[in-house]
Amino acid sequence: MGANAPRRAKIPESAIRRLSFYHRHLRDLQALGVATISSREIARVYGLEPFQVRKDLSYFGSFGRRGRGYAVSRLRQRLGLILGLDSEWRMALVGAGNIGMAIFRYQEYRRLGFRIAAVFDADPDKVGRELEHGITVEPMERIGPAVGEQDIRIGIVAVPPEAAQNAVDALTAAGITAILSFPGGQVLVPKDVALRRVSLEADLAALSYFLANK
Amino acid sequence: MGANAPRRAKIPESAIRRLSFYHRHLRDLQALGVATISSREIARVYGLEPFQVRKDLSYFGSFGRRGRGYAVSRLRQRLGLILGLDSEWRMALVGAGNIGMAIFRYQEYRRLGFRIAAVFDADPDKVGRELEHGITVEPMERIGPAVGEQDIRIGIVAVPPEAAQNAVDALTAAGITAILSFPGGQVLVPKDVALRRVSLEADLAALSYFLANK
Repeated sequence: MGANAPRRAKIPESAIRRLSFYHRHLRDLQALGVATISSREIARVYGLEPFQVRKDLSYFGSFGRRGRGYAVSRLRQRLGLILGLDSEWRMALVGAGNIGMAIFRYQEYRRLGFRIAAVFDADPDKVGRELEHGITVEPMERIGPAVGEQDIRIGIVAVPPEAAQNAVDALTAAGITAILSFPGGQVLVPKDVALRRVSLEADLAALSYFLANK
Repeated sequence: MGANAPRRAKIPESAIRRLSFYHRHLRDLQALGVATISSREIARVYGLEPFQVRKDLSYFGSFGRRGRGYAVSRLRQRLGLILGLDSEWRMALVGAGNIGMAIFRYQEYRRLGFRIAAVFDADPDKVGRELEHGITVEPMERIGPAVGEQDIRIGIVAVPPEAAQNAVDALTAAGITAILSFPGGQVLVPKDVALRRVSLEADLAALSYFLANK
């Protein structure tokens, strides 16, 4: 981080998520040749209060000037640097079933510099299957060697809940410290590993909480 | 909410998400006949600090007694009530493409009382397609009538970004106030509508932030 963006200890995850949205929007604006943008305009796109946008950006120091807005290209560059979105991240996908294949086909994350470099599955029937982008489903034993050979840094786990711990163990044993996990249930990781859970159930629970309490 | 669980204005979304995980775990424990559980045990399952679990539960008043743990069935019941997970929520899925069908097939949310009651798509080729659970893909014009007929309360949007606003508009026009949206980009909703965005990109950005700053 630069001298103007002092590192803070605790940035709420919700802010990180919003910042990644702002980054994507700024990239689009930059492509359209827009030079400056106000916090009010960013806020409007995402249905937020301008205060929220200014606060999110303030976690990383000051980027804009009051009343003059933000320089799109500079703000985008800074956010990209902060979020680590200016490097390419190679990812290993474990699980070539329904969810795994939906993730693989989705590919929108590619625009942000995330690339699935290898796909693994424990099912011998799936191993050897040729996917798009020149990728072939490999057996679980290949996780260790592949991570080193291909400089893979992020793991995505899309296996049934009962296979989740095995998948996570194989990734962490290979040196992966950042994992996105889809299955529910108990999964333990070493202290230095970031495990994020994607959970449709949790998202739906947040909506049912909203409906039950409004 | 009961008299023992005073409603607080601001419960962080991250707490709501964790509470839904606790709820699921408690349901499993209850099925296994476990009578009591400590915050330490809940914390261990999710790699959290016991303090965090106690804090999450404290947003809703006091459930347990220090040193004696929580009564599983009571805690589960209370969390279910708070999160709205003791009623069945009928949902409309808009978009029968790759993502939409992965969501439809996943069905884990059914165990929590969420049920996709109707599926809609703008593509005439998809309309009329018969899915599992006796559901047929319907045209977009059917959203309004179907929401009323089937008491649908939640909308899931899984369409391409350029079609997202149309899908959201059709749902809100039909009276839906809770929407889970998968496509990226700009989507505007009325003030009284809760729009949650599921974003693999945002999840990956949180991991790249972790990797770039650790």
